[in-house]
Amino acid sequence: MTLNVALAMPAHTARALFPERSLDTLEPELNLLSLEPIQDFHAPEGKALLAEADILITGWGCPMVDDAVLDAAPRLRYVLHAAGSVKHHVADACWERGVQVSSAADANAIPVAEYTVAMIILANKRVLQIARALHTARAEIQPERLFPDMGNYRKRVGIIGASKIGRHVIRLLAPYELDVVVADPYLDAAEAAAIGVELVTLDELVASSDVVSLHAPSLPSTKNLIDAGRIEGLRPGATFINTSRGDLVDQDALLARVERGDIYAVLDVTTPWVLPADSGFYAHPNVLLTPHIAGSLGNELERMAASTVQEALRLSRGAPLSFRVRAEDLGITA
Amino acid sequence: MTLNVALAMPAHTARALFPERSLDTLEPELNLLSLEPIQDFHAPEGKALLAEADILITGWGCPMVDDAVLDAAPRLRYVLHAAGSVKHHVADACWERGVQVSSAADANAIPVAEYTVAMIILANKRVLQIARALHTARAEIQPERLFPDMGNYRKRVGIIGASKIGRHVIRLLAPYELDVVVADPYLDAAEAAAIGVELVTLDELVASSDVVSLHAPSLPSTKNLIDAGRIEGLRPGATFINTSRGDLVDQDALLARVERGDIYAVLDVTTPWVLPADSGFYAHPNVLLTPHIAGSLGNELERMAASTVQEALRLSRGAPLSFRVRAEDLGITA
Repeated sequence: MTLNVALAMPAHTARALFPERSLDTLEPELNLLSLEPIQDFHAPEGKALLAEADILITGWGCPMVDDAVLDAAPRLRYVLHAAGSVKHHVADACWERGVQVSSAADANAIPVAEYTVAMIILANKRVLQIARALHTARAEIQPERLFPDMGNYRKRVGIIGASKIGRHVIRLLAPYELDVVVADPYLDAAEAAAIGVELVTLDELVASSDVVSLHAPSLPSTKNLIDAGRIEGLRPGATFINTSRGDLVDQDALLARVERGDIYAVLDVTTPWVLPADSGFYAHPNVLLTPHIAGSLGNELERMAASTVQEALRLSRGAPLSFRVRAEDLGITA
Repeated sequence: MTLNVALAMPAHTARALFPERSLDTLEPELNLLSLEPIQDFHAPEGKALLAEADILITGWGCPMVDDAVLDAAPRLRYVLHAAGSVKHHVADACWERGVQVSSAADANAIPVAEYTVAMIILANKRVLQIARALHTARAEIQPERLFPDMGNYRKRVGIIGASKIGRHVIRLLAPYELDVVVADPYLDAAEAAAIGVELVTLDELVASSDVVSLHAPSLPSTKNLIDAGRIEGLRPGATFINTSRGDLVDQDALLARVERGDIYAVLDVTTPWVLPADSGFYAHPNVLLTPHIAGSLGNELERMAASTVQEALRLSRGAPLSFRVRAEDLGITA
C-alpha cells in the first residue's frame, strides 16, 4: 500500500533531520508529496499537501495539529513525530478522531542515556575534578589522597524513573560492575528484576547511592520530587545528575548543599534553564553545567528521523507502529 | 589441595588491594600464611614466609622475584600479580625455573576502557567544550552553532591496538551506534569481525576517525607510532585520546596541531608524565589532561585483587590459570 507522506516542520528542522539524500529511503514504498516541509498549515501550499497526506511527519517547531488542520486533511491517519514529546504538537482532536500517533522519544532517549552513563563513570572516578586540579596545579598531584573514595568498582548508581531514558541508562550500564538500583512508582519488583536492577524506594535510593541520576518526567506530580529533604539525604561524596527538567528539583536546596562542598552536581537542565549570570552554580568547582544538550543534537537528529521513517515504512507494509503514543500515556510521560 | 599463599608488596598496597575482610575469601581452600605482606624478601620474616609459600601474590611496589628469592622459596610454583604488567616484578629466573605467572592486567584494563568510552561519548558531543563555553558565558549559548558536527550517531571511532584494553573498549562500545574500526598488526580481518569491528590500516584509521584512541603497548617497536605525519593526518575536528604511554606519540607535533585549534586531545599520559608547568597543553581549551588515572585507582584495586584471588582458587582446584603470562608474551604486550 503506497501512503502519501508530508513533512510538517520549519525548513531548518527538516534539513537537520533529513540531510542530503536521506529522504530517498522513503521510496518506493512511500510517496513523499514534497521535499519542502509544510511550515504553515493555513498557507495555500500547506493546505494542498494536507489535502493529499495519509501520514504527517512532524518535527520540532511544527505547529499544533488541531481540528482545523484535520479538517483540511481528510486522508490523514497518522502523525509520526520525529522528536520526543508530542504534547505540543498533537491536539486532543487527533485522539478524538482516531489519528494514530507515534514519536521518536525512544530514539531521543539514547543520547540522553549516553551522556548520563559517561557522566556516571567520570563522577565515580572524580575525573573532571582531578583534571581541574591538574590543570590548576600544573604539577604532580595525588589523586587518591584528594579523593580516597574514587573508583567505579561496585559503586551504587541510583536511577530515578524507569522511563525510556532510565531504561536506556540501565541497559548501557549492564556491562559495568556497578550496583544499579531504580525507584519508580510505576515499576514493580519483578519488572525491575527483568531489566536487571533492584527496585528501592526513592528515599533509600537517595540515601544509598554514589550517583543519583534523575530520569522522571516533568509532571504536576513530580514537581519538586527532589525536595530539600531528599537533597539533604544525599550521601557525602554523592553526585547528582539531572538531564530531566529543572522543576523536579528544589534548586535552592541543591545549591546550598553543593556550596557546603560535600556533593557534586552535573546539571543539563535548571530553572530557569539559562541560569542568571550571578548563579552560584556557575562558579562552584563541584558543578558541571551544560545547556540542555543531553538530548538529540547535531547528527543525533538523524537517529530520530531514521526511527520515524521506519515507522512510516511499517505502516506501508500494514504493520503496527513500534512507538505508538496513546492519549492515556501523556499523564505519566514527558 | 591446600596451597600456601604469601603476599609480597608494600603494606599500603596490601591494604588498598585487600580492605577489611576481603582476604577471608581465600579460606578454606587456600592457606594464607600471614595477613602481613612480605615487604623485604631478605628479612627474616620474609624468608620464613618464602620457605613455606606455594603461591606468591604480588602487587605494585613488590621487589623483583629473582634467583635469590626463588632459592629461598623451594615450594614456590606460582606468582600471581595483582596488577598489570609483570615486567618489573618477574625476573627471567621465574620463566627459567618453570614458575607459572599470572597477572590482573585484564582486570586493570577495565577502568581504562571505562574512562576511554566516557571520553569518546563526551568528545563526539563536544560536551566538555560546551560546558566550558557555558561556564564562561554565564548566558545562553548556541551549541549547534559552535559545533555543527556534534553528536554520537554513526561517528567513527578508531581503536589503535586490539590489546586487552582495546578489546574492552570495543566491548563497551558495542551497544552504541558508532562505527568502530581497529588497527593492529597482530590482528587479522576474521578476528576483527569476530569482535564486531572492521580492521583497517593505521593510516586509514587516523585519516577517517572522529575519535582516535591509543591502546597499543609501549615497546621499542611502538615508540613514536603516532608520529608527526599521522598527527597531521587526523581529521579536522578529531579527538585524540591517549591512555597508553606518552612515548608512543610525537608530543611536540601533537601540541603544534592542538594549537592550530582544529583537533582535541584527552591525555592521561604524557612525556614526561608530569608536564612542565609551562607546557602549552595545560592552557589550551581543546585539551583535557588527567594524571595517569585511567587505570585502577581507589576501589578499582579491589577488582584486581578479586581477579588474583580467583586465580589462586583455580589453582587450589587443580584448574589452569585464566590469565597466565608467558615469557614470549612480554615482547608484544605492556
